[in-house]
Amino acid sequence: MTYKELTGQILKRRSFLCIGLDTDPGSMPVHLLKADDPVFAFNKAIIDATHDLVIAYKPNLAFYESQGARGWISFEKTVRYIRAADPGVLVIADAKRGDIGNTSKHYAKAFFETLDCDAVTVAPYMGEDSITPFLSYPGKWIIILAITSNKGATDFQFFANSEHKKLFEQVLERSSSWATKENMMFVAGATRAEMLADIRRIVPDHFLLVPGVGAQGGSLEEVVRHGMNDNCGLIVNSSRGIIYASTGEDFALKAREAASEIQQEMARLLPYAPSTTSVQP
Amino acid sequence: MTYKELTGQILKRRSFLCIGLDTDPGSMPVHLLKADDPVFAFNKAIIDATHDLVIAYKPNLAFYESQGARGWISFEKTVRYIRAADPGVLVIADAKRGDIGNTSKHYAKAFFETLDCDAVTVAPYMGEDSITPFLSYPGKWIIILAITSNKGATDFQFFANSEHKKLFEQVLERSSSWATKENMMFVAGATRAEMLADIRRIVPDHFLLVPGVGAQGGSLEEVVRHGMNDNCGLIVNSSRGIIYASTGEDFALKAREAASEIQQEMARLLPYAPSTTSVQP
Repeated sequence: MTYKELTGQILKRRSFLCIGLDTDPGSMPVHLLKADDPVFAFNKAIIDATHDLVIAYKPNLAFYESQGARGWISFEKTVRYIRAADPGVLVIADAKRGDIGNTSKHYAKAFFETLDCDAVTVAPYMGEDSITPFLSYPGKWIIILAITSNKGATDFQFFANSEHKKLFEQVLERSSSWATKENMMFVAGATRAEMLADIRRIVPDHFLLVPGVGAQGGSLEEVVRHGMNDNCGLIVNSSRGIIYASTGEDFALKAREAASEIQQEMARLLPYAPSTTSVQP
Repeated sequence: MTYKELTGQILKRRSFLCIGLDTDPGSMPVHLLKADDPVFAFNKAIIDATHDLVIAYKPNLAFYESQGARGWISFEKTVRYIRAADPGVLVIADAKRGDIGNTSKHYAKAFFETLDCDAVTVAPYMGEDSITPFLSYPGKWIIILAITSNKGATDFQFFANSEHKKLFEQVLERSSSWATKENMMFVAGATRAEMLADIRRIVPDHFLLVPGVGAQGGSLEEVVRHGMNDNCGLIVNSSRGIIYASTGEDFALKAREAASEIQQEMARLLPYAPSTTSVQP
């Protein structure tokens, strides 16, 4: 999906919501555990109930890998199902990979060729050659960790040099020189939304994936105030607050209600109406 | 495997060699491609031919994931096969994972419970809560990236603060305070072996996993001079130089010869004889 197509979907759907498919058999409704593939059965119901309200799904690989190869099969089925259900939705593999160039090529192949994901999250610690192998796929995206929403984010991401430049700023500056807004996004944790303004000073045009709305805290209005740009430029994720809104048989309906509530707030916060605005070049 | 057991294996085998199982169907002998599971067939032959010469195998997940769920099955079979073939050998999942605490728990479960690996490599960018979930498994190890051996290592790992402390030094200082030499190791790239001396000043006692001997360059003698401690404290990896020593039908024999050459140099460089030295407490 290109930058223009993604922006078009946001305008059309009046939404910049991503649902995190952090699907854990220990947290899902008990009646689903009898299914052949409970993780896929859960995801399928969530996708059916919500896809018109979102612009992206983000399965987190950890939740699939903890089931071993069986979990990877659930993951593959989920990606294929999203593709078939709604071609206008971005599929983000939240994998936080990254290795030396020759090895990162294999990760890029895994997520962009073997699987047809649109985007993959990558940890920047290993630098340029760990990142560039993901950039040679037209219409595919790399999403680089800049600031994460967890407590440990402060351990290294705010390590500052003698000019008070922080590591996450160095990551933004260097990484954004290796690609464009057309194929690179950044993870921007929203525990303190003002930090989004610092990020925007360095990358005004790139999409930011904001993971911290919902269970991890963070107000949508604050995120929009500090992070939105002329083309929206935001993908805001919620995982547990939506997919585990209910653990009863009504889980999909309740997930839709939770997603709809966020989508309606997003529609209100998007400053332009779909019929009157075109995508900025 | 405990620290004492690992050190005991090094003394007994006169080796601190790790073979990286970066198994790529595109690089393996053609006759194996007819097997049901070529990746596992290749690994099995390499393990049979070399396990008495090594203290560890290190399958790199990227090479398995690029085959999708099928690759994860090959990975699982490989881990089980190493376990059965030689319980004295460490199994390192080279996965470079790392996520927020709740998610890292699932990665720890994937590699230490669902699979019975001994160790997993982790990227430190997300800080303490991305790392601690791996520490609650007795006899299991986390291996944190400090300096990697690739060109991109200089992009962020050497980012320095106003006191000239580099990011990799910050990673070593902070991380080593969260665990002990009993359950934490560090990846220490060896493109310039003198850097191992800088690492040793911060973590004199921890094991270092050195990835850069062989195809990525780096002299074993230099690595030993700058990185070895009283309990050896080194696991030195070679991947392509061993497993692709030949691409003919004699690949396993040639892999053994290549591994044996390194093991003999290691036996010479280990300063103590197995009968005269005990493990330092």
